[in-house]
Amino acid sequence: MNLALQTAAAAKGQTEPNPLVGSVIVNHNRIVGIGAHLKAGEPHAEIHAIRMAGEYARGGTIYVTLEPCSHHGRTGPCAEAIVEAGISRVVVATLDPNPLVSGRGIRILQEAGIEVEVGICEQASKRMNEVFNTFIVQRRPFVTMKAATTLDGKIASASSDSKWITSEDARADVHRLRNENGAILVGVNTVMKDDPELTTRLQGGRNPLRIIVDSTLRIPLDAKVVADGKADTWVFTSANHSKDRRAELEALGVSVFATKGSDTVDLSEMLDILGSRNISSLLVEGGGEVNASFMAGKLVDKLILYIAPKLIGGRGAPTFLEGAGIDKMKDAVEFADVDMSKVGVDYRFTGYPKWQ
Amino acid sequence: MNLALQTAAAAKGQTEPNPLVGSVIVNHNRIVGIGAHLKAGEPHAEIHAIRMAGEYARGGTIYVTLEPCSHHGRTGPCAEAIVEAGISRVVVATLDPNPLVSGRGIRILQEAGIEVEVGICEQASKRMNEVFNTFIVQRRPFVTMKAATTLDGKIASASSDSKWITSEDARADVHRLRNENGAILVGVNTVMKDDPELTTRLQGGRNPLRIIVDSTLRIPLDAKVVADGKADTWVFTSANHSKDRRAELEALGVSVFATKGSDTVDLSEMLDILGSRNISSLLVEGGGEVNASFMAGKLVDKLILYIAPKLIGGRGAPTFLEGAGIDKMKDAVEFADVDMSKVGVDYRFTGYPKWQ
Repeated sequence: MNLALQTAAAAKGQTEPNPLVGSVIVNHNRIVGIGAHLKAGEPHAEIHAIRMAGEYARGGTIYVTLEPCSHHGRTGPCAEAIVEAGISRVVVATLDPNPLVSGRGIRILQEAGIEVEVGICEQASKRMNEVFNTFIVQRRPFVTMKAATTLDGKIASASSDSKWITSEDARADVHRLRNENGAILVGVNTVMKDDPELTTRLQGGRNPLRIIVDSTLRIPLDAKVVADGKADTWVFTSANHSKDRRAELEALGVSVFATKGSDTVDLSEMLDILGSRNISSLLVEGGGEVNASFMAGKLVDKLILYIAPKLIGGRGAPTFLEGAGIDKMKDAVEFADVDMSKVGVDYRFTGYPKWQ
Repeated sequence: MNLALQTAAAAKGQTEPNPLVGSVIVNHNRIVGIGAHLKAGEPHAEIHAIRMAGEYARGGTIYVTLEPCSHHGRTGPCAEAIVEAGISRVVVATLDPNPLVSGRGIRILQEAGIEVEVGICEQASKRMNEVFNTFIVQRRPFVTMKAATTLDGKIASASSDSKWITSEDARADVHRLRNENGAILVGVNTVMKDDPELTTRLQGGRNPLRIIVDSTLRIPLDAKVVADGKADTWVFTSANHSKDRRAELEALGVSVFATKGSDTVDLSEMLDILGSRNISSLLVEGGGEVNASFMAGKLVDKLILYIAPKLIGGRGAPTFLEGAGIDKMKDAVEFADVDMSKVGVDYRFTGYPKWQ
């Protein structure tokens, strides 16, 4: 199954909107087939593996990182192909995340008398397709919050200097994140303070859609994200926004969306709007207040912190998480699947908030 | 030399006020002698190794983690013992930190025609005796700042809840730190908010001297550190303190020291006073303001942060480093010899501030 996961991961970034899937067929302790789903419209992983195995598939065991499909797509249901190939045992990492079809592939296999095992390396397979799983099931983007902080949690000095907290290596890692995400979000305060481009500075990189949370449409018309034309920009505002300002922004090519919140932007509604427009992943690079709104709404799927081994100090220096915060330690946000690794001279923390 | 360092480290905590020293003698690629300094008043590491080697010392190479001494102490100068043993080559990790004698042992060896190499594993040897080196050279305690924070740098929620940020494993590690340090320091705000005991909860542990920074002698007379008698307590205050209050505290067995600062406690003077009273190590467990005063005075030798993979958030929640903070990122405090490791479910960051 580990080989199947590795094979699946090799196609990272080229299978959208489909998930990463890998498959390995073993017969008499020999690997006889290996397959991965490489591109939407092309065969699924199991089909590639079965073709490679040929006659050796018969009587063998197939390992597959995702439940074989049951629907008649461009390559026919994989579950039926497995039955036809004469495979006698199927080991599946995780069921199909789509509740409408989940378990159907397994049923086809079991009805054909095939032994099926589910749940081997389940977490690893789910994490590999975390964006796909969230988007398919909830129809809203997978939200990754990213911040660069010092050891004391600060994202800038009291006088707003933040260039640079982290090293070039960590910043390059952020551009890789931007390249992987369909959209990037900041608050209007960040636009007014830093005037960022929010583009991907990577050779061959693609720019994400730029999303600005701006409840009163204070965004300057000459801000780079409005004026530079380097990527599309969508501004989300509250119901009580200025219609004139909206028209000015739209005239400059910016899309403006008003959520129902009368004074604030309803972030949950915003995510639904993004999902309905096929944005499957969102990178939140907000300041402390925007980040706190996402956390308070339990809307964060993954946190990535770049922690520089430095200190800024200062009661007036902003941390990456402001807002009201929690009251009692028992309500602190905790994390699953945490990892701390080194990126250049900095540390990168990754974790998945455990929402109750 | 690595074996010599390991041998030296084995005696941790039992050599005070002497440093940890280890020594290994090699002759014709065979280890013929191993020694460590075990206890003040007993032979130095080199003497133990030479005795173990006996006749095999002649013509051999001795590795020693600290420059052999040149003074006539209870076991005679080690440098002369090395000459007498007929050793032909000496490899030293680091020179004696005491500027009054540094280099003298080396000179005795060289004048006797022995080949001497200095600087092998120098950093490791210096760090092993970091407390001793600071105390001997500067006659003030080695200052370790310790804090337990969340990923967003907070040490409590906005409503002051902090029980518990870190796990039991991390808290046990803190008690080990308290056991290793001669004194522990907090600000009076921490005493008034948490009423801590500041004792070592470890089987067989010893309690450090308790030091409270309290510029106006606001400390309650029924605070545990004043009233519980579990360890000595010294209060450092400013020149403008209440003489009546001082008398009340002294009547309860608390020692009160006034530094020259008229409104604040002069921390640098405080460290000199501690040094003059043979306190060689100080653990600062201050809140954000006390910590910031130590950092602003460049008085911190080592930082140990226990970082819980949790979030508190809140613009009103205190971070472990408040004060005024730095203004420009180029003035951020950076660290040497950084390490991030796991302690239970938490992370422990260790680093040495690079003061310019």
